[in-house]
Amino acid sequence: MRNFSLGKLFGIRLELHSTFILLIAAITGFLAIFDFPSLVPTLVLLFFLFVSVFIHELFHSIVAISKGIKVEKITLLPIGGISLTEEIPEKPLDEFLIAVAGPMFNFIVVVLIALLLSFFPQLPWPWHIFTDPAAGAEELNQALLDFPLFSLFWVNLVLGAFNLFVPALPLDGGRVLRSILSWRLGFSKATRIAAGVSTVLSLFLFLIGFFSGNIILLIIAIFIYLGAGQENEFAALKETLKGVDLTAVLNKKPLILKQETTLEEAFQLLQKKNQTAFLVETGNGIGFVSVDVLEGIKRSRWPVVNVAEAAAELPKISLTDSPIKIVTKSLSRNYPFTLVYSSGKLVGVIDEEQLRKFLKITKLNKESQH
Amino acid sequence: MRNFSLGKLFGIRLELHSTFILLIAAITGFLAIFDFPSLVPTLVLLFFLFVSVFIHELFHSIVAISKGIKVEKITLLPIGGISLTEEIPEKPLDEFLIAVAGPMFNFIVVVLIALLLSFFPQLPWPWHIFTDPAAGAEELNQALLDFPLFSLFWVNLVLGAFNLFVPALPLDGGRVLRSILSWRLGFSKATRIAAGVSTVLSLFLFLIGFFSGNIILLIIAIFIYLGAGQENEFAALKETLKGVDLTAVLNKKPLILKQETTLEEAFQLLQKKNQTAFLVETGNGIGFVSVDVLEGIKRSRWPVVNVAEAAAELPKISLTDSPIKIVTKSLSRNYPFTLVYSSGKLVGVIDEEQLRKFLKITKLNKESQH
Repeated sequence: MRNFSLGKLFGIRLELHSTFILLIAAITGFLAIFDFPSLVPTLVLLFFLFVSVFIHELFHSIVAISKGIKVEKITLLPIGGISLTEEIPEKPLDEFLIAVAGPMFNFIVVVLIALLLSFFPQLPWPWHIFTDPAAGAEELNQALLDFPLFSLFWVNLVLGAFNLFVPALPLDGGRVLRSILSWRLGFSKATRIAAGVSTVLSLFLFLIGFFSGNIILLIIAIFIYLGAGQENEFAALKETLKGVDLTAVLNKKPLILKQETTLEEAFQLLQKKNQTAFLVETGNGIGFVSVDVLEGIKRSRWPVVNVAEAAAELPKISLTDSPIKIVTKSLSRNYPFTLVYSSGKLVGVIDEEQLRKFLKITKLNKESQH
Repeated sequence: MRNFSLGKLFGIRLELHSTFILLIAAITGFLAIFDFPSLVPTLVLLFFLFVSVFIHELFHSIVAISKGIKVEKITLLPIGGISLTEEIPEKPLDEFLIAVAGPMFNFIVVVLIALLLSFFPQLPWPWHIFTDPAAGAEELNQALLDFPLFSLFWVNLVLGAFNLFVPALPLDGGRVLRSILSWRLGFSKATRIAAGVSTVLSLFLFLIGFFSGNIILLIIAIFIYLGAGQENEFAALKETLKGVDLTAVLNKKPLILKQETTLEEAFQLLQKKNQTAFLVETGNGIGFVSVDVLEGIKRSRWPVVNVAEAAAELPKISLTDSPIKIVTKSLSRNYPFTLVYSSGKLVGVIDEEQLRKFLKITKLNKESQH
């Protein structure tokens, strides 16, 4: 299932994650059939969740942009969002400020609503769940449906507190923990420790979720477990790339098919050379044709379409970019090649497969020397 | 976390899946702290589950072996087991018989216990949960802890019925469904349909599990979803390989390092050629040295250990084997090479990477012609 694009804002692409769509669809369907009266209040609650997660991420992004970090896109998940930045902030203080910015928005909403209530105590508000010591989960759930202002308050309180106070990567609390550790220990070691803490926490949350039957907790535990693993891998990659010269994997004389080559001819060549992708000339530069590109075009058209028309775009990097930026860009979204420029001129290409092998060998070389 | 090996039986390796170990550890720890009196009866219940899953798988395997299919290993999961066979039975009737054999064992146990009870009605047995219409989940759970004979009965009833009557791959019921569809539609189309049914069923189970808070159901839904996807991929691979000649990817003159080459020399060569694995001579044949193999040996020993000592084993195939057998063997467990024999003589090697590319191109070629 694919994510749903919501358009662009400040140059940042906005996406709704497929699980968010699935959740809305499932809840709407379920309530429409089995509990029609709660349908509208539940959708209001989901709307508040959506808006709060969105502005939370926007706060992260604005601080990131102000620190000179480009934000590519924001993906909204039901349990929070993810801002995809091109790089992780180098300075611990920057990471700290970016991490706390999101929850700060949620806490601002909470404080504003509290202030509003203190001036207008007659506003509709479920005072009984605060005053009645016997009120439990059921009363809370009912109040969330009955009092929209309260549900906005509650959503922001939970989002802010959960993201800031659980010290697990990839949550904001984990980033705060890492940024503090980074001050003394450096980025790599700080990430290893923070990822270790996250893994232990996720197992703990999983067991609590399992034995108490709390499914949301289980999903969060899995999310943290996988996310912490990714952060750890990224830190290891950064460690591997320290002082590495990537020109070793630069192919200066790559094979590039001429733009008038037909797709059928290109496919014959793929078969003959047992290769899954080729560089091709396009009208205004260089792109690629691969098995995946060919799959999208009817076989009957292969003899009449040329590679320039079918070519897909390639990422571009500069030789002066940092190795970690070059590698993350080259390996993002499984591009087969990356175009390498120096002073505006194409100087060669990096083959994704060659790069992966180079990284494996470099990692072994570094680690074996300790 | 790694699976736990239990040894060999009839030439079949037996493994306990890591989730089974985790479940036992988690339940034991939880009960030891919070509910000590249920600890022993719960472990008895888990033991019955373990034995029943095990013999269930053994019944599958015995019928498979009698049909000439080699069974490599049995992995025990808490919700059932997996018998890893070298190939999927070609004849629908064979697959049908192998699939029903496992649940049949469970039903035999159920029937034997029922017979035993009818002859000895004074045996300890929770008659009240059968006669009392008000008895619910709580009474059932208590009875499972209080009456060992009943828990053996219940475990086998649930295992047998669940595996046979849910028509979803990779459960036995899904295999029965596919074998019946295969009679008329052939293996590939039958798998596509059965995998489609399984995916729909898994989403359905997921939603029920989500809204009823039943975590076991959620885990089973995920298991079915992933398993059905794998079966579908396997069927697509089989379709791709129909009539394909794999000698196209056979390297008849591979580079093989001499046995006296040191690991340090081999590593220099890996770096120079940007390759992650090499074939090497061993005393009695050919093995390989790779980044992973080197990772397991201290750097200080690389200059004094030679490749023959460090070499890992490679899978062997015969050119007369069926393409699907060759490919599944070559791609199992990420071996970098497969040795190819003809009339007992080595005729070449298949490179895993080359094979994967060849399969991608062949698949595109076949699919684009429809």
